Amino acid sequence: MPSSAVHRHDVIVIGGGHAGVEAALAAARLGADTLLLSMSCDTVGVMSCNPAIGGVGKGQIVREIDALGGLMGRAIDATGIQFRMLNQSKGPAMHSPRAQADKQDYRRFVKFAVEDAAGVSVRQETVVGLVMSEEEGGRRNEVDGDATPSPSPLPHHRIAGVRVADGTVFHAPAVVLTTGTFMSAVMHTGEAQAKGGRAGEGTTSGLSGALRELGFELSRFKTGTPCRVHGGSVDWAACEPQPGDADPRPFSYLTHRIAQPQVDCYLTETTPAVHDLIRANLHRAPMYSGQIHGTGPRYCPSIEDKVVRFADKSSHQVFLEPEGRDTREVYCNGISTSLPRDVQEELVRGIRGLERARITRLGYAVEYDFAPPTQLKNTLETHRVRGLYFAGQINGTTGYEEAAGQGLLAGANAALAVAGKPPLAIGRDEGYLGVLIDDLVTKGADEPYRMFTSRAEHRLTLRQDNADRRLTPLAAAIGLVGPERTEQLARHEAEIARCEAFLEAHRIEGKTLAERLRRPEVTLESFAELPEWRAERFDPRAAEQAAIGAKYAGYIARQAVEVRKAQRWGAVRIPDGFDFAAVEHLRHEAREKLGSVRPADVGQAGRISGITPADLSVLVVALERAG
Amino acid sequence: MPSSAVHRHDVIVIGGGHAGVEAALAAARLGADTLLLSMSCDTVGVMSCNPAIGGVGKGQIVREIDALGGLMGRAIDATGIQFRMLNQSKGPAMHSPRAQADKQDYRRFVKFAVEDAAGVSVRQETVVGLVMSEEEGGRRNEVDGDATPSPSPLPHHRIAGVRVADGTVFHAPAVVLTTGTFMSAVMHTGEAQAKGGRAGEGTTSGLSGALRELGFELSRFKTGTPCRVHGGSVDWAACEPQPGDADPRPFSYLTHRIAQPQVDCYLTETTPAVHDLIRANLHRAPMYSGQIHGTGPRYCPSIEDKVVRFADKSSHQVFLEPEGRDTREVYCNGISTSLPRDVQEELVRGIRGLERARITRLGYAVEYDFAPPTQLKNTLETHRVRGLYFAGQINGTTGYEEAAGQGLLAGANAALAVAGKPPLAIGRDEGYLGVLIDDLVTKGADEPYRMFTSRAEHRLTLRQDNADRRLTPLAAAIGLVGPERTEQLARHEAEIARCEAFLEAHRIEGKTLAERLRRPEVTLESFAELPEWRAERFDPRAAEQAAIGAKYAGYIARQAVEVRKAQRWGAVRIPDGFDFAAVEHLRHEAREKLGSVRPADVGQAGRISGITPADLSVLVVALERAG
Ligand SMILES: Cc1cc2nc3c(=O)[nH]c(=O)nc-3n(C[C@H](O)[C@H](O)[C@H](O)COP(=O)(O)OP(=O)(O)OC[C@H]3O[C@@H](n4cnc5c(N)ncnc54)[C@H](O)[C@@H]3O)c2cc1C
Ligand SMILES: Cc1cc2nc3c(=O)[nH]c(=O)nc-3n(C[C@H](O)[C@H](O)[C@H](O)COP(=O)(O)OP(=O)(O)OC[C@H]3O[C@@H](n4cnc5c(N)ncnc54)[C@H](O)[C@@H]3O)c2cc1C
Repeated sequence: MPSSAVHRHDVIVIGGGHAGVEAALAAARLGADTLLLSMSCDTVGVMSCNPAIGGVGKGQIVREIDALGGLMGRAIDATGIQFRMLNQSKGPAMHSPRAQADKQDYRRFVKFAVEDAAGVSVRQETVVGLVMSEEEGGRRNEVDGDATPSPSPLPHHRIAGVRVADGTVFHAPAVVLTTGTFMSAVMHTGEAQAKGGRAGEGTTSGLSGALRELGFELSRFKTGTPCRVHGGSVDWAACEPQPGDADPRPFSYLTHRIAQPQVDCYLTETTPAVHDLIRANLHRAPMYSGQIHGTGPRYCPSIEDKVVRFADKSSHQVFLEPEGRDTREVYCNGISTSLPRDVQEELVRGIRGLERARITRLGYAVEYDFAPPTQLKNTLETHRVRGLYFAGQINGTTGYEEAAGQGLLAGANAALAVAGKPPLAIGRDEGYLGVLIDDLVTKGADEPYRMFTSRAEHRLTLRQDNADRRLTPLAAAIGLVGPERTEQLARHEAEIARCEAFLEAHRIEGKTLAERLRRPEVTLESFAELPEWRAERFDPRAAEQAAIGAKYAGYIARQAVEVRKAQRWGAVRIPDGFDFAAVEHLRHEAREKLGSVRPADVGQAGRISGITPADLSVLVVALERAG
Repeated sequence: MPSSAVHRHDVIVIGGGHAGVEAALAAARLGADTLLLSMSCDTVGVMSCNPAIGGVGKGQIVREIDALGGLMGRAIDATGIQFRMLNQSKGPAMHSPRAQADKQDYRRFVKFAVEDAAGVSVRQETVVGLVMSEEEGGRRNEVDGDATPSPSPLPHHRIAGVRVADGTVFHAPAVVLTTGTFMSAVMHTGEAQAKGGRAGEGTTSGLSGALRELGFELSRFKTGTPCRVHGGSVDWAACEPQPGDADPRPFSYLTHRIAQPQVDCYLTETTPAVHDLIRANLHRAPMYSGQIHGTGPRYCPSIEDKVVRFADKSSHQVFLEPEGRDTREVYCNGISTSLPRDVQEELVRGIRGLERARITRLGYAVEYDFAPPTQLKNTLETHRVRGLYFAGQINGTTGYEEAAGQGLLAGANAALAVAGKPPLAIGRDEGYLGVLIDDLVTKGADEPYRMFTSRAEHRLTLRQDNADRRLTPLAAAIGLVGPERTEQLARHEAEIARCEAFLEAHRIEGKTLAERLRRPEVTLESFAELPEWRAERFDPRAAEQAAIGAKYAGYIARQAVEVRKAQRWGAVRIPDGFDFAAVEHLRHEAREKLGSVRPADVGQAGRISGITPADLSVLVVALERAG
């Protein structure tokens, strides 16, 4: 072998998707010398599917990513072409920001940000294997997909680096794997199949074998994408315009305003005739013909799924979303499909406004390997290999935001571990990210996991408007965000306090403004004409916080009680490597489940499905005895 | 099979590179309903290698493409970040425009232009086979790479369409194949190999088999690309800045001025130590180890080629060219290489300014199938299959400009043929494009062919400054350019005539200005202070034409005589399908060569290497007898 320079870094991130990008940036923000390896430099930051960020549950995650210093919020603020705050008619816990992106602008912004970040090196490389450290119990020091799989699992390995296509090894004590839909990926359009994780790109098969050999369980999921049509062939007048908000609100707490011009989306819908066509061709849909084995996302279903599952609905919405400002391609949101070409073409032409639409890219489904996430700690480190982290779609999730959030936490934890510092954990009561991670590592994923507000038991406090207040202090404490964010938050908190004081001090007809706000029909706007209120010129974002606090004070107090209750169990830690099998009096099923999930604390143990309060009592006694 | 709608178009273009884009646009300008099929919509217009358009010989081609209504000139004008007119110290025949592009902007501009063009439909599809018409002598009507190759060639086929990956057939009476470096492509970096025509993309193997089965000869060429480094890791102060021209001049005759801000490039060089390193590792270079069989471009050699071929040179220039405005990646022009990673890394660090450079993408070579171009008519239609055209790198050329020029002519000729109109042919005396096509179809390509001014025998008239005057009238005559260009040219010609008249009429010390201009030291600037000259306010571009005409009148007149002489032979047409084997008294070698090239006229016959004037006389007699 050549006398090549040895490549050493603190953290290696594999993959330049949404998870990989946030992972690399977070690790670097914490001071780790970070290497990002991706199959192509040109696809760093690519949006594989729809040109949008945010949405219900997801918009909250973007705000949390931003509060932790991540990139996603700033990227969409800089490149969004239509911003909407969803659910504005509902309470503030349901308000969810969403924006369409100019897809190419988004990718360029992200790629540039990663290139430009101090502490991150990007290299165009395809990873084919993982390298284990020889120090610790490693029978072999290199594992790749070509090697014969060993029958017995290899527990307690430690990662030492990765091997790329030409055999070169890049060394690091921590590796974050974020390969998205690319592991052993197969694309389907009707009967036609092709290898690849995204149209026009490749797949990576070596890694699946390497993970299996290390004893990881892999399973198959599928996801899909709709066709794109040429904007010039759409009858826009036949569709209903969907303008963005008149006052587009940014995702990032650092963005002051959205300056770029906005565009409209359009709404149309499928018809009974379209549904008949789909039903008549179901035997040719890879999902139904048996050609695809992986489970698809229930909450982002293909049009064929929708027609089957909601057989009584006579139409489904189709949003026509421009993919950017300098392209004519339009994304047909709502008709994700892997039906064969002829059906796709007839289907599209059956939709109002698309009668003469010209398809530029067909829809397709992609089936890929994921690693069931109960194999992870809540730091996203694998139980099986020390220093190896998984983040993003590889963990069985779907969605850019879920991927990015996991990436940020995995990257941060990788860097913290390398530096010998305690991990960053976000509780279920602190953020949707906490809910996401806890759900994944505790319950696994029977189907592609996406976030919903209903997954959060404390969602009244987990609002998009207060992610900075909830999470930026955590991030600041470990150096994950810089002074710009902490100073901004300090100013914000001071202004909130000033406004709260005013609301408590000021009375109308004997009642304080805070008290008045508790009445459903009273809002901040009710005070707009009060000269005293106007004189204070409160920052509107701070005033909103104060008002929400006043309005929901009762609920929030009750939630706090519940949170404290839940935290009690959470405080009882279970040591790493604790032997659940050795716990006397524990039911066999509980032993198995606990042994497989390996919860970090009794709180998490209690959330494992099938674990009873009685099991917990037995466990707590055993833990007390052991520790 | 499903009852799919039948897809019918006039012209199908396979490939969205520089050749494919110009082919599709030209066909559509001529009124053909044109379909562009490309492996990925996102790579339409990608610059595979260096971020620059133009250069010596190539800049002239871009001007000619523009004069014919093509896109390339406008694309680089809109997205160029550093413009230079090369060879300004030499005569006007040598002036050659060149510009650096923002690579991503260039790609987006081109993709949008193609999407937006009336008459062009773009679809993301991978073509796997060619479909022959059954009407005419076709033993089989479908040919693809999976079929068993038939031993005997199938002459006089007629194309009927193409088959894409899922089996669907798109029908058209004319097909232009522009697959670039993608046919049976293998990439090499040192000992490591991977399939694919460009890093991160796939290859198309089916088409090679399909062409072979039709009796086409295929051969292997290779090309290479240098590594890219991160701009933040370059010591710019150690390099020599290379600013662009203060007054950047546009490529397109339609562009008034270059408005966007310009950037600098930088110059550095290799050292004897770097050359020693390369020599010590030559056995590991795929070009020298025997791993690559294809011939590489002599005039765009890899650094290992340069070190071997110019063994006495102690350094080679390396231009550091930013790949765009919002990326930190820098293209290292001059060190294209497929040496293994460790050598590339050491090599880069041996260059002044790059001592601490961080490589973002390694250099690599790609080896691919091309079709020796003597199998083509001068319309770029294949002799073997009617309606099938080849253009671009598939014809054994290298370079974006050469590809684009061929694409334009192939697309135009495909559309003209479908409309039953006579083809567009450009003579060697009319344009570099004429030289290019004639060289290819007459002499073939023993090594990747690129344009040089020295290839043109009439280069005094084939200047970058007069491509519109030479070619726009040809294009206008067949409807390839619209009124915008013809009107602009008419105004230009009128202004030139006005200026010429002035130069003839005006005297200083008894001599007309035109006569004065013949003296080497006299230029237009010499008249700058003349009040009469200033009063006329001649358009500078028109004045330049008049002055060049006056200055080189003698040479140009002599060249015209030669052109007329050459045209005499060119006027003697050889009918399609003429049987050279049956010509009595023709030498055996001449019969073979003529039979393989199948020249369109006696002029072309005379340019075939090994054909003597005596052969031509025999041929002319035979033609007179036959016709
Ligand atoms: C066709 C399709 C349809 C989808 N539809 C939806 C949808 O409807 N709704 C939804 O919410 N989500 C959808 N998604 C999912 C969404 O794209 C992902 O959730 C998100 O992109 C995941 O981000 P990630 O970072 O985990 O992976 P990705 O964005 O997939 O990024 C993976 C990265 O890893 C790189 N990589 C892979 N293997 C290697 C290797 N061996 N070496 C080096 N680099 C490697 C890739 O080049 C890429 O940069 C879809 C995805 C696809 C492909
Ligand atoms: C690594 C590398 C290095 C190079 N170095 C140099 C250099 O140093 N100097 C130089 O002058 N030139 C260089 N070139 C060549 C230059 O890129 C080409 O000359 C130019 O791009 C050719 O244009 P083209 O249109 O013929 O092909 P390309 O630009 O290669 O485009 C081919 C197109 O065809 C599509 N395609 C291929 N197969 C199919 C199919 N079956 N179905 C549908 N679509 C298909 C591809 O997706 C692509 O869009 C290099 C190229 C490469 C790849």
